[in-house]
Amino acid sequence: MKDQFKQEIKTVIEATQAKGDIDSIYLVACGGSHAFLQPAEYVLTKETTIPATVLPSREFITREPKALGEHSLVVSCSHSGTTPETVAATKYAREQGALTVAFAFADESPLEEEAEYTIHYAWGPETDASDLNTGVLYGWLFAYLNVINPSEKYDRALKALDVLNDVTTKTREQYTPIIAKWASELKREPLVYSVASGINAGQAYSFAICWLQEMQWVNSAYIHSGEYFHGPFEITDFDVPFIMCEGLGKARAMDERAVDFAKKHSDKVYVIDNKDFDMSLIDEDLQDYYSQIVSGVVYRLIAESFAYERGHSLDVRRYMWKLEY
Amino acid sequence: MKDQFKQEIKTVIEATQAKGDIDSIYLVACGGSHAFLQPAEYVLTKETTIPATVLPSREFITREPKALGEHSLVVSCSHSGTTPETVAATKYAREQGALTVAFAFADESPLEEEAEYTIHYAWGPETDASDLNTGVLYGWLFAYLNVINPSEKYDRALKALDVLNDVTTKTREQYTPIIAKWASELKREPLVYSVASGINAGQAYSFAICWLQEMQWVNSAYIHSGEYFHGPFEITDFDVPFIMCEGLGKARAMDERAVDFAKKHSDKVYVIDNKDFDMSLIDEDLQDYYSQIVSGVVYRLIAESFAYERGHSLDVRRYMWKLEY
Repeated sequence: MKDQFKQEIKTVIEATQAKGDIDSIYLVACGGSHAFLQPAEYVLTKETTIPATVLPSREFITREPKALGEHSLVVSCSHSGTTPETVAATKYAREQGALTVAFAFADESPLEEEAEYTIHYAWGPETDASDLNTGVLYGWLFAYLNVINPSEKYDRALKALDVLNDVTTKTREQYTPIIAKWASELKREPLVYSVASGINAGQAYSFAICWLQEMQWVNSAYIHSGEYFHGPFEITDFDVPFIMCEGLGKARAMDERAVDFAKKHSDKVYVIDNKDFDMSLIDEDLQDYYSQIVSGVVYRLIAESFAYERGHSLDVRRYMWKLEY
Repeated sequence: MKDQFKQEIKTVIEATQAKGDIDSIYLVACGGSHAFLQPAEYVLTKETTIPATVLPSREFITREPKALGEHSLVVSCSHSGTTPETVAATKYAREQGALTVAFAFADESPLEEEAEYTIHYAWGPETDASDLNTGVLYGWLFAYLNVINPSEKYDRALKALDVLNDVTTKTREQYTPIIAKWASELKREPLVYSVASGINAGQAYSFAICWLQEMQWVNSAYIHSGEYFHGPFEITDFDVPFIMCEGLGKARAMDERAVDFAKKHSDKVYVIDNKDFDMSLIDEDLQDYYSQIVSGVVYRLIAESFAYERGHSLDVRRYMWKLEY
C-alpha cells in the first residue's frame, strides 16, 4: 500500500483514539460505494460489540438516528467525492458531533471538505490491489480493530494486503476464459438475477445495480441466498438466469442450498464458488473476509465480458452525468 | 386489540423490564416476516439509542454478531411458527442468553417452543387492523418505547391502534377502483419494479419478493428511492413499469425525486402517494409511522387485482410447501 494511504489511515486511527469511546458506527454512501462499505459492516458486526449500520446516504440523513452523536464514527465514501447525498450526510454527521472519515479516489473534493479526515485510494487496471478502494478499506478496518481489541489476527489481516494483488491477478487469469463463455451464453438475456449472502452481499448487490442495471441496461435484482427460499425462488424456471456466489464462511451452507435448488429448476445457473479461488497465500481464518474482494474481480470480469459480447460499453449512460436530476 | 394479545404484550414488557439493561435489539425473520419487522427497526433507530438491526434469520445465525448476549433482545417472527431458519435463530439467540420474543399467528408452534415469550396476532379479511400482525407489532413497539423513555407520544401512538381499522377500511374502499385500473394496465408485464424508502421499505420489499415474485411469478426488484439514482435509474425507459411509494416523513423528498425522474422517462409509473391517504384520525406526528400499514393495504390490493386480472391465484405455488428444499 502506498505510503500516502498508510499515513492517512494512521492519522484517522490516532484521531479515533483521541476521540475516546466510540459507541456507534455508521457506514454511509450511495450505489457502488454503498455496496463497497457493506463488508465493513459484516466484519465489524462479527469482530466488535460496537453497533455498525450501513445506510444509503439520504436514508441516513432523513432517518436521523437517535444514537448519532459525539461518540459516533461515521465513515462515508464517494469515488469522485462529489455525490451530493454523501457530502450532505457527512456534513450532517459532523454537525451532530460525530467523527467523520471519508474514502475517496478524487483529491480536494467537496466530500473531503466536509469530512474531518479523508482516506484516499487509487484506481485503474494497473493499480496494486492493496491500493484499490477495497484494499485501503481493509487497511483501515483491521488497523481500527487492532486498536479496539489488539490481536495477532489483525496483524495478519493487515499483512494479507501484501499478497492480495497476487491473489486477484491469479483469479483474473483463471476466470477470464470461464467468464468469456458465461457472457456469450448470457448475452441475450433481458434479466439476470444476482444471489449471495454474508460477506459477498455487497458485491452481488453492486453487480445487480451497477454492473447490470446501470452499465448494461440489463434488468436485475440482488437476492439474499437465505431470502431466496421465502419468495423469490418461486420465480425460478428452466430459462431464468441466476449468477450466484458461494462464500467460504459460515454463510456458505446458506449459499449452497440456494445454488442446489436453483440448479435443479433452472438451466441457467452460473456459480462463483469461492472455494475455486486460490487463496492459499492468505491465512485460512482470514479467507472469508478477503473472499469478497476476489469475488469482486470475477463480477467485474463478467461485466467486462458482457460489455464486449453485447457491444455495450461500460461507459455508456443515458441519464447519469448527462441530465440534471 | 384482543385481550389475549394485550396480555401477551404486557407479559413481554414486564419480562423486558425484569431483564434490565438491553443494549442491542435484533429483529430476525425470513421473507414476508422479515419485511414485516423492518418498520420496527426504522422506528427504534429514530426513537432510541439502543442499536436495532434487522437480519434474515440464517444471516443472523451465520454472522454470529459479537454484541449478541445476555443484554440483547431478539424479536423474531414466523406466521406459521414453523419457518426452520427462524426457529433455529430464536433457539440460537436464547442459547446466547438473549431475551427472545416471537411473533406468530399459529398457536403452539415450534417457534413458540423455542422463544421465551410469544405474542400472537390474528389473520384473515374480517380481522380488525389492530389484531393483524402490524397492529400487534406496533402495540408491542410503542409499549416498549414507553418503558424505555415514557412519553405521551407513545400513549397516543398506542391509542391510534383503536382507529387503525377505520383508516385501513377507508383506504381499501378508496383504492379499490384505482388499483383495478392499474392491474388491468399492468397485467401483461413480465417485470415490475418496486421503489420506496424510509418506513415504507419493508412493504415495497415484500411487494417485490412475496406478492410479485412468489405469488404472481412476475419478475421484480425492490429499489431504495435514494439508491435508484446510483445505478438502477439507468434501466428506466418508456416501457419499464415502476410501482413507487411516496411516504410522509422526511424520506418523502427522496421518494418524490425518484417519482419525478421516473415519470419523465417511463410511461408506466404508478404512485402510492401516502398524502392521498385519509389519516386524519391519527395525530400528525404519528402518521409517518402508521403510513406503512396503510401502504400495505394498497400493495395487497394490487396483488389481489393482479391475481384476478392474470387468473393466477395468490395461493398457487410450484415449489413452496410442495417440495423438500
